[in-house]
Amino acid sequence: MKSITKPTLLIQPAISHRNIQRMIQKAKDSNSELRPHFKTHQSLAIGKWFKNYNIHKIAVSSVEMAEFFAKDGWNDITIAFPLNPNEITQINRLAEENQIHLTLLNEESIHFLNHNLSNRVGVFIKIDTGYKGSGVSYNQESFIQKMIDQIQESKKMELKGFISHAGHTYKTSSKEEILKIHQEENTNLNKLKYSLGNLPPDFILSTGDTPSCSIAEDFRTIDEMRPGNFVFYDVQQAELGSCSLSDIAICLACPVIAKYKERNEMVVHGGAIHFSKEFLIKDNQQIFGYTVELTDSGWKITEENGILTKLSQEHGTLKVPEYFFDKYDVGDFIGILPIHSCLTANLMGQYMDPGGYWYDHFAGTIKG
Amino acid sequence: MKSITKPTLLIQPAISHRNIQRMIQKAKDSNSELRPHFKTHQSLAIGKWFKNYNIHKIAVSSVEMAEFFAKDGWNDITIAFPLNPNEITQINRLAEENQIHLTLLNEESIHFLNHNLSNRVGVFIKIDTGYKGSGVSYNQESFIQKMIDQIQESKKMELKGFISHAGHTYKTSSKEEILKIHQEENTNLNKLKYSLGNLPPDFILSTGDTPSCSIAEDFRTIDEMRPGNFVFYDVQQAELGSCSLSDIAICLACPVIAKYKERNEMVVHGGAIHFSKEFLIKDNQQIFGYTVELTDSGWKITEENGILTKLSQEHGTLKVPEYFFDKYDVGDFIGILPIHSCLTANLMGQYMDPGGYWYDHFAGTIKG
Repeated sequence: MKSITKPTLLIQPAISHRNIQRMIQKAKDSNSELRPHFKTHQSLAIGKWFKNYNIHKIAVSSVEMAEFFAKDGWNDITIAFPLNPNEITQINRLAEENQIHLTLLNEESIHFLNHNLSNRVGVFIKIDTGYKGSGVSYNQESFIQKMIDQIQESKKMELKGFISHAGHTYKTSSKEEILKIHQEENTNLNKLKYSLGNLPPDFILSTGDTPSCSIAEDFRTIDEMRPGNFVFYDVQQAELGSCSLSDIAICLACPVIAKYKERNEMVVHGGAIHFSKEFLIKDNQQIFGYTVELTDSGWKITEENGILTKLSQEHGTLKVPEYFFDKYDVGDFIGILPIHSCLTANLMGQYMDPGGYWYDHFAGTIKG
Repeated sequence: MKSITKPTLLIQPAISHRNIQRMIQKAKDSNSELRPHFKTHQSLAIGKWFKNYNIHKIAVSSVEMAEFFAKDGWNDITIAFPLNPNEITQINRLAEENQIHLTLLNEESIHFLNHNLSNRVGVFIKIDTGYKGSGVSYNQESFIQKMIDQIQESKKMELKGFISHAGHTYKTSSKEEILKIHQEENTNLNKLKYSLGNLPPDFILSTGDTPSCSIAEDFRTIDEMRPGNFVFYDVQQAELGSCSLSDIAICLACPVIAKYKERNEMVVHGGAIHFSKEFLIKDNQQIFGYTVELTDSGWKITEENGILTKLSQEHGTLKVPEYFFDKYDVGDFIGILPIHSCLTANLMGQYMDPGGYWYDHFAGTIKG
């Protein structure tokens, strides 16, 4: 590990490449198209890896992120976040030179776009297949048909398809539950599609949560997969069964600042402003991350890990096995795998690889 | 409110000034010195407000933050975070032209500084008065005496005092509990001080959590108060009794992106990358923020608020009273008071006041 002095987000590009290759192969096997979501890495350099794998269509979570990647030559972008009418100026500018696809939830947005778009855009209707987040419920067929007809009448919009996000896979406790949600989403979208009229021939069904995309194998009746998190994965995904801990491609290196052998704890510099406060609960214990051992080539999983059990703004408290007290002195760095890599990456804004090369987010952290 | 198009962190400077003035008066009444912690606002412009109130000493939570404020002319800075030996180069550079005070937890740090400091610095020993975070337990008198003697022998360090942070006030459910913790901290620090020898005449007892500093009145036996959060306050502090909702000086303006009258919910653009995932629990309900009504001069508290009950990376789900459905359309902005202003401010990196003036963090978000 190159010389670092403070909490630093490390990346192992080889792991990330393996995750990307696996997802590309999975999409290919089902004859589905991978449109990776770039909200997790937010990096032009990592974007280029995808380009080298011949991926040219992406999803992002904000207009700002679309602007950022469009500047770097990505010109087929789905803004997989419901339309915010206040951003119409930026959307019109983006749509001048790029294929932009918007996400719509309601008739108001259709009327608004009809009156305010200056360039033709693609639109997806967001369908809620059971998550109860944002989206039109899959069983509101007549309302959805009305939206479709309104879009089809418009010269400003091209109806692309349905987009859905089964976020409830994150609340499951077994792979079977995730597969069941994936199957329901798949069935509900397809049933809905075949019950409706006035659809274009190349109508797209697009789904996207990383747990489904990682655990399910069959995407033959889904036209497009939009996972994002898989590029790095994290402890939450490992707990869900989407990956193993050795598939996690980023890790926060934290200096030890205090050792408390009498209570099996160490304190590190690494807190809520580095990790975010996302946690999972296991055996009634809040878990904010697992330790790994830093090595010259990145880090390695050890048999017995420490657990990040408490976070203040800057401090993290680790419950550690006894051998840590001989192994680590104050000032030594410990690696910690994050619970939610999207949030950790967003907070840190840059990654360092084992060669000491930095991958920066555009102008620091992108905010939606 | 000036024209905004996306999630925007608003500030009401008048509220913040009132909070600052109140804390200055409280310190004055007890003949204690206020050394505000600048980790919450991280802003040069807001720092200047304190300067105008004749405050010239500050606390920060990282070496990086010390460098940032030192560049702007703050030259008496306590780094209220335990020494990370890896940062000695930056510390030495800072100490060339500034009075820097470090926080020490152990003998190793004293030896390390003795060998590696190139300029004299002030040092505080961090005492744990019951929180069990980082710090030497207040009942380890002989160990603390040993540390004191070692520091007093050194030409490189000037012993300044004891520093403590009663972070357990954040886990309380009544003002009485907070007052009890404050009293214990006060007693433990003073008892410890009077049981020890070899102390300088102007030995400082420095305490700092915002709940104690807001709720307690008597700081006569505490020499220095180091609160930070009070500059903005937040919903968590209001729940603890440190302030009322009308003392909260920042609020995130979020556009409505979907309305679900059938389930009394609205979805806004405003998620974990804006608020952080800090929450509190009330009546078995996770609460990530309370809505307020935006006005030309900022916002106002209404009788019946909406509650932010769910956060994904970019979305927030609000449980709202029925009148919201007539009041707000898709695209309208709702104000949301954050649970933890330090984390929200850190994520957003800038504030806009009612006149449309922006207060930016130095080069975006400062990371520890």
